[in-house]
Amino acid sequence: MSQKIYVGVDVGGTAIKVGICDAEGALLHTYEGPTETSKGADAILHNIAQYARDIVDQSPFEWEQVEGVGVGIAGFLDIPKGFVKYSANLPLKNVDLKGFLEEKLQVKVLINNDANVAALGEAWAGAGKGIGNCVCYTLGTGVGGGIIINGKIVEGFSGMAGELGHMAIVPDLEAIQCGCGKMGCLETVSSATGIIRMAKDAVARGDRTSLSTVDNIMAKDVIDAAKEGDEVAARIVARAAYYLGRSMAQIAVVLNPECFIIGGGVSKAGEYLFAQIREVFEKYTQDEAKENVKIIAAILGNNAGVVGAAGLILKDNK
Amino acid sequence: MSQKIYVGVDVGGTAIKVGICDAEGALLHTYEGPTETSKGADAILHNIAQYARDIVDQSPFEWEQVEGVGVGIAGFLDIPKGFVKYSANLPLKNVDLKGFLEEKLQVKVLINNDANVAALGEAWAGAGKGIGNCVCYTLGTGVGGGIIINGKIVEGFSGMAGELGHMAIVPDLEAIQCGCGKMGCLETVSSATGIIRMAKDAVARGDRTSLSTVDNIMAKDVIDAAKEGDEVAARIVARAAYYLGRSMAQIAVVLNPECFIIGGGVSKAGEYLFAQIREVFEKYTQDEAKENVKIIAAILGNNAGVVGAAGLILKDNK
Repeated sequence: MSQKIYVGVDVGGTAIKVGICDAEGALLHTYEGPTETSKGADAILHNIAQYARDIVDQSPFEWEQVEGVGVGIAGFLDIPKGFVKYSANLPLKNVDLKGFLEEKLQVKVLINNDANVAALGEAWAGAGKGIGNCVCYTLGTGVGGGIIINGKIVEGFSGMAGELGHMAIVPDLEAIQCGCGKMGCLETVSSATGIIRMAKDAVARGDRTSLSTVDNIMAKDVIDAAKEGDEVAARIVARAAYYLGRSMAQIAVVLNPECFIIGGGVSKAGEYLFAQIREVFEKYTQDEAKENVKIIAAILGNNAGVVGAAGLILKDNK
Repeated sequence: MSQKIYVGVDVGGTAIKVGICDAEGALLHTYEGPTETSKGADAILHNIAQYARDIVDQSPFEWEQVEGVGVGIAGFLDIPKGFVKYSANLPLKNVDLKGFLEEKLQVKVLINNDANVAALGEAWAGAGKGIGNCVCYTLGTGVGGGIIINGKIVEGFSGMAGELGHMAIVPDLEAIQCGCGKMGCLETVSSATGIIRMAKDAVARGDRTSLSTVDNIMAKDVIDAAKEGDEVAARIVARAAYYLGRSMAQIAVVLNPECFIIGGGVSKAGEYLFAQIREVFEKYTQDEAKENVKIIAAILGNNAGVVGAAGLILKDNK
C-alpha cells in the first residue's frame, strides 16, 4: 500500500499555509496562498480547500494517499463540531468549517485553535519529539500556549486550556490590568507587548537607560540593551523571565510535564532569557516535580502550525 | 454473562479498606482490616491480598466476576511497573506490589497513589459523576490533589501531577517555608496545618480573638470562630480561601476543567468557605475559562479511595 500523508493547514489573517507531513511529522512539502480576508467567508473557505488540493497536486503524492486534513485557526471554536464561532481577525461567524471541507475534499477534517495546533506540532515533531507530556509557551504580542498530555492536545471544558498568558501570576501589589480585563495576567509582563510597556514606562519615568534614545521601542531593543549591560533593560527582561519561571513552577506540580517548550519572537532572546527562567523555576519548584524537566526553545518556528495541524489527524484529537 | 465487578483497595497506615464497585462506580460492599504495619512488608502484602479475597467471599459475587483489583497507596510509586519505591508511613521499599498481587489473585492489578485514586473516585462516581475533566483538592494536614482529564488520572513525568499543595502561590513578601523546603506553597496557608499555624501566630502576637482561650487550636476551632464573627479567625479563613481561589484561577487557564472538587477535613467548613473561594476565583479568572465552571464539595468522604481504586481497573490507567 502506498504511504499515507497528512495535510496541515494554518489559517492566518494574511496567508494560509499548507503542509504535507508523513506519519512521523516530517514536513515533506509546503505551500502558501493569500487568505483574501477582504473577500469574505466564502472566499476564505474556498481558498482553504483549494490550497489543500493544490499542495497535493504539486507534490509526488496522490489525493488518495491523504488520511485527512487538519486545520489550525485563531478564534473561538466548537472543536468537536468543527465550527468557527467567531474569530478576531477573520470574517468567520458560526461557520461549519469541518462540514464544508469534508464535503469539498471527501476526507476526514479536524480543526483546532492555532495555539493548540502549534503546541502539538512542537510536541509531536519539534523540540518535544518523543516526549508525550509538554507544555508550550508562545511569547509574542501576547503569551499563548498549549498543553499536550500523552501526545494529545488538552482542550478543556470551553476550549480555554493552554491560555497560559492569562495565568494571574503577578501579585496584586504590582499587577496591572490585562487586555482580558483581569489583573496580573502573565502576558502583562512576559509578552513582547509587556516588555515594551515596561520599557516605555521606564523611559517616561526618567530611568537612566539607553532605551531613552530609541524611537519606537521593540521587545528586541530591550533584550539587546539588556544583553549589552543596560541595567534598566536587564531588570525588565528579568521580570519577564521571573513570572514565566513562576508560572512553570506552578504548572510543574499540577501537570508535571517532562518539558516546557518556549517559542515566539521573545524566545529569540535565547539562553540569556532561558537561563533566567530556569533559575526561577528551580527556586520555586518542588524537587521531585522539577527533576530532569527541560525548559527548551521551540524549533519549528512558523512551521509548527502546519505540522501540528497535520498531527491532528494522526492523533485524532476530536 | 454474569455482572463484572471491580475491587478497590485503599492502603492506609492503620487500616486497609476494600470495596466492590460495579461498572458505574456504585459501591456494593465494603470491608476493612488492620494494616499491621508493625509486622513488616510481607504481612502488609499478605493482608492486602487476603482482604481482597475476603470481601468477595463475603459478598454475593464470585471471584470469577472480578475484572481486576485496583490499589491506592501513599508513597512514591513506579506506577507503570506497579512498584512501591518508598512510603512515608508504611515499611515498603522497592516492593513489586502489582506483581505480588497478580500472582496471588490471578487478576489484573493496577496501583496508583492515594491522592490520585481519591480524585478519580470523586470524578468518576462522586461529585464529578458524568464530568470528564475535574481537578480535586483535599484539604487536610497538607493539601493534596488529583487531575482527571477525559476520565483518566494525569500522573505526570515523575508521578508528581496533582501535587496542588506545592503550587508556589503565596507572593515572596508574605511567603513562609513549606515542609517541602520551598517558599510560598499553597499548603502553608490552605491546609489544616496552615490554618492552625496562622491562628497560633495571631494568638502569640496578642491579636484580640476568642482563639486565645482555646487550649489546643484545631482548624475546626478557627472555622467555627470565624463563622461566629471572630474577625481574626475570619481573616485567617479568608486567607486560606484566597489562595485556594487564586490557585484555581491559574489552573482554569491551564487545564480549563469543568469542575473543582474540594474534600478533606477543612472542606467541612462548607458554604462559608466555598463562597469565599468562588469570589476570588471569579475575580482572577478570565471570563471564558470560568463560564459554568463549578467549585463543589466532595461527596464520597472516606470511600473516595476504594471507589477510585476500583475505577483504576475500569479506566485502565496504567
